[in-house]
Amino acid sequence: MPEPNAVEGLIQALRKLPGVGVKSAARMAFHLLQNDMPGALQLARALEQAVNSVKHCQLCNTLTERAICATCSSPQRDRSKLCVVETPADQAALERTLAYQGLYFVLMGKLSPLDGIGPKEIGLKKLFDRVAAAADSQTPLSSEAVGAREVQEVILATNFTAEGEATAHVIAQALKSRGVQVTRLARGVPVGSELEYVDLGTIAHALVDRR
Amino acid sequence: MPEPNAVEGLIQALRKLPGVGVKSAARMAFHLLQNDMPGALQLARALEQAVNSVKHCQLCNTLTERAICATCSSPQRDRSKLCVVETPADQAALERTLAYQGLYFVLMGKLSPLDGIGPKEIGLKKLFDRVAAAADSQTPLSSEAVGAREVQEVILATNFTAEGEATAHVIAQALKSRGVQVTRLARGVPVGSELEYVDLGTIAHALVDRR
Repeated sequence: MPEPNAVEGLIQALRKLPGVGVKSAARMAFHLLQNDMPGALQLARALEQAVNSVKHCQLCNTLTERAICATCSSPQRDRSKLCVVETPADQAALERTLAYQGLYFVLMGKLSPLDGIGPKEIGLKKLFDRVAAAADSQTPLSSEAVGAREVQEVILATNFTAEGEATAHVIAQALKSRGVQVTRLARGVPVGSELEYVDLGTIAHALVDRR
Repeated sequence: MPEPNAVEGLIQALRKLPGVGVKSAARMAFHLLQNDMPGALQLARALEQAVNSVKHCQLCNTLTERAICATCSSPQRDRSKLCVVETPADQAALERTLAYQGLYFVLMGKLSPLDGIGPKEIGLKKLFDRVAAAADSQTPLSSEAVGAREVQEVILATNFTAEGEATAHVIAQALKSRGVQVTRLARGVPVGSELEYVDLGTIAHALVDRR
């Protein structure tokens, strides 16, 4: 039986990872120490580097090492569209589609009152400030200000879970009064799926939103 | 989209963990950086500490921070029994049963010729040397030498997979000629299971090994 010190400490630390229980953690620890010492050191360095260098983008709130992330500072992005997502992972999924060229705003969470996560815990105020700044610059309606690529459409791409839907609803309510177009990702039948195996709620939404 | 540097490096490093693909790695990285920076640092330190301090026990080959591990150096263990397991995780599983008070020998692997893992890659020579030393001290048959708690029984507890069985077979063949009793964990129907759902091979073994 290994001593409770280093190996046990490593197993406990690995359990901090989401989806890793004590058995997986033990398997990971033993694997690293038996077969992949360089991998373990690489992971240790990557963790330290990420913790020390990663912060939130001042514009879109995503994780980045710069004050303004690569997406926000890219001149190629369409600055009239702002896509609101819950996490950087959701953002990465949208980026992989190559179907969206606008900017993002990453909430870093979702409204979840039962867990004590309200508008302050996620980036809602930062989002509203950003859109408000855009709306203000729109009020004089100088075509140049609009042409200056400010937010004209907010696309809500929070998850289609209860919390994600609630978050989308709150954002939509708050933004509609500010004169910004607010849209939501389409609900419907996933590509490649057979109707027989799709859940009823999805089919009902696909019927209502038919085009 | 986060920059490819620190976050991407962390995702790549997390993929070194067994059973972690790119999606799980991304989820882990974003979780740590969003919600658990202290956990990330703790994991980094635990990894470094384990890599720097953990080595193999000189007697049983398991992972430990000392020259001789706690189990091998415990005066409470029955030194006449030596249980051969593949990994420290298997050893930990046996320890949790509280049913075994002997010593262990941890192979740190199993014979797997297709993967190029032969007797040299796992600790077979160390095991044979250890048992040979015990057998030599038995040859003069001074009752004191036998009483000096040397190995009299080797219990093969490698896994019941093709490679584990082959490893057990090789060890059994090598040790039988050295006058040591060699036993194997019993095969049979798992506790709590219904015959209807147990695979045929297991039932056949349980029939043959009935008592």
